[in-house]
Amino acid sequence: MPRWEPDARERLVAAALQLFSEQGYDATTVAEIVDRAGLTKSTFFRHFPDKREMLAAGQETLCRLLGEGISAAPPGVTPLGAVAAGLERAAGAMTSFNRELGPQLRAIIATSSELQERDMLKRVGMAAAMAAALRDRDVADLVATLAAELGVLAFKEAYAEWVADNDEQDLARLARAALERLHAMLPQLG
Amino acid sequence: MPRWEPDARERLVAAALQLFSEQGYDATTVAEIVDRAGLTKSTFFRHFPDKREMLAAGQETLCRLLGEGISAAPPGVTPLGAVAAGLERAAGAMTSFNRELGPQLRAIIATSSELQERDMLKRVGMAAAMAAALRDRDVADLVATLAAELGVLAFKEAYAEWVADNDEQDLARLARAALERLHAMLPQLG
Repeated sequence: MPRWEPDARERLVAAALQLFSEQGYDATTVAEIVDRAGLTKSTFFRHFPDKREMLAAGQETLCRLLGEGISAAPPGVTPLGAVAAGLERAAGAMTSFNRELGPQLRAIIATSSELQERDMLKRVGMAAAMAAALRDRDVADLVATLAAELGVLAFKEAYAEWVADNDEQDLARLARAALERLHAMLPQLG
Repeated sequence: MPRWEPDARERLVAAALQLFSEQGYDATTVAEIVDRAGLTKSTFFRHFPDKREMLAAGQETLCRLLGEGISAAPPGVTPLGAVAAGLERAAGAMTSFNRELGPQLRAIIATSSELQERDMLKRVGMAAAMAAALRDRDVADLVATLAAELGVLAFKEAYAEWVADNDEQDLARLARAALERLHAMLPQLG
């Protein structure tokens, strides 16, 4: 068995973000990314299928945690209560690495329509994972879809606050608060 | 000025759908599509940037109509009331061509992850167009986003009913009814 670099994934993402900032996303090759990270192409491809997927890295884990948190919520909990449990579970897995790279990531995504597409698909994937876990709790299909959309919005809001804020607030708490704000807004719809 | 085929766009889409059904999306080339349609590649590229975009054809028009309908809604109308006006405007532009090709289109999208991605992005685009038009009516940012998500869900529900139903129901009426059903479900969220 080869000895795996435990932090190879983070090193590759950090190197890629540096290069994307310096010379643009389109102009950067996988070869340059592995050079900068001091790793090999085969290590890269153990972690990512291609350059685009790097910036959606963690999506699978995030979706799994969102689903697990929803499934583990107590039986009597409302759909939004279950979503809050999912957000808390996922938020707990976000590290200071996620927090520090957040602004850089946003800036790079804003430069490329390919990355913007990938980012939107990441959100669609998160919503699908939450809706599936809610349906498994016998939440009606459309109610599950709606609750999941609220969950994605709350996570996005909370993440933006977390990254922007200097006080190192707790992401899980921010996510729950954002979901409550969204819930309180529903009567304004019509 | 060249004489434009008034129905070239529809002929290209119909030919593409036939070929995708017969031999798969990936295996079909633009050259085969234009051959089948009895048109030229230059006609194809006047209408579509590439094969993938064919199946999201009409997205721009749809988004424009959604936005126009929302902008034209009377001033006192609620956010969801404005969304209903947008859906009605967009629904009015859907023809029997859209209705007949609907099931074929669904079946082909289900075969390709590339097309599924494109389809999800189409929905993201529709939501963005509605949310922007709502914000222009001074609807608060998150309320606009939520109302737009409900609009996309309602349109999707109504479209599925319209395509599946043999009674040629009115799509605009179906969309308004779907939005009302979604609205009535909100208290179930939590």
